[in-house]
Amino acid sequence: MTISMYEASVPVFSARLKALSNVLAAAEQNALDRKIDPQVFLTARLAPDMFALTRQVQIATDHAKGAPSRLAGREVPKYEDNEASFADLEARIAKTVAHLATFSAADIDGSDDKMIELKLGGREITLGGMQYLLHVAMPNFYFHLTTAYDILRHNGVPLGKATFLGSR
Amino acid sequence: MTISMYEASVPVFSARLKALSNVLAAAEQNALDRKIDPQVFLTARLAPDMFALTRQVQIATDHAKGAPSRLAGREVPKYEDNEASFADLEARIAKTVAHLATFSAADIDGSDDKMIELKLGGREITLGGMQYLLHVAMPNFYFHLTTAYDILRHNGVPLGKATFLGSR
Repeated sequence: MTISMYEASVPVFSARLKALSNVLAAAEQNALDRKIDPQVFLTARLAPDMFALTRQVQIATDHAKGAPSRLAGREVPKYEDNEASFADLEARIAKTVAHLATFSAADIDGSDDKMIELKLGGREITLGGMQYLLHVAMPNFYFHLTTAYDILRHNGVPLGKATFLGSR
Repeated sequence: MTISMYEASVPVFSARLKALSNVLAAAEQNALDRKIDPQVFLTARLAPDMFALTRQVQIATDHAKGAPSRLAGREVPKYEDNEASFADLEARIAKTVAHLATFSAADIDGSDDKMIELKLGGREITLGGMQYLLHVAMPNFYFHLTTAYDILRHNGVPLGKATFLGSR
């Protein structure tokens, strides 16, 4: 009759991150094929005051590791944000997917009304778990996930929606 | 202890679409300020084989009107896809938000295991309501919502994440 906080978080982050890994693998291969320095893609951005590809992937994984951890009342793992290659970014995604796999449904379920404290835009805010997941973590996650894809499409990497969705 | 299919769909689509409306209003004003023909923004795209802004907004609203309708077992409203201006797109968003407001929690709740039939990438598929919402409708919705924003940022429209999220 309802869906669980677990179903609405862990499998969603996990499936989308695995797809992001495929997106990055396609980009890396495309750089090789076109004899483009991979750094060109890694540092590409859609506007001078938007983050480059590497940072987009870092922030997407930050939301994916942060949300279930906060909902389960666990410490959010700290990553060093020092990724310098496609291999590094893929390792960060794999580490995040492995972290997601450590949560059982029982760890997350029931967190819909748990009060979550976080910094948002420099301010300390407190909001319910469901509100946090659906209106902060997910939109932010999808924003950076999509923008990473958009940066690569803008740079001519041949990708399709099915790869973004992870449906193939 | 759990979240409802209603909470995971209607208020999410609604909040994000209202934010999209603010994004478009900012773009329209920016075109005016910079003396740019609004058609330049409406037809802008990030890659030659990606959809332009107008189509991104149309598809985002398609998912927002389609998902709750399918989950509730109602006919999906047909829109003519003839928007030709920012005002038209804002009207389409307003129409979608008004459609969303016609659903009560009782209309949507319990649809997590309802079988949903839809065409996806040219194929007829059937999947459960929760799977459809979390793994088809939402990622597609966020993809087009974010890409609309990215197109405008790429074209120099001054926007920030808070406007995308609808947090201001």
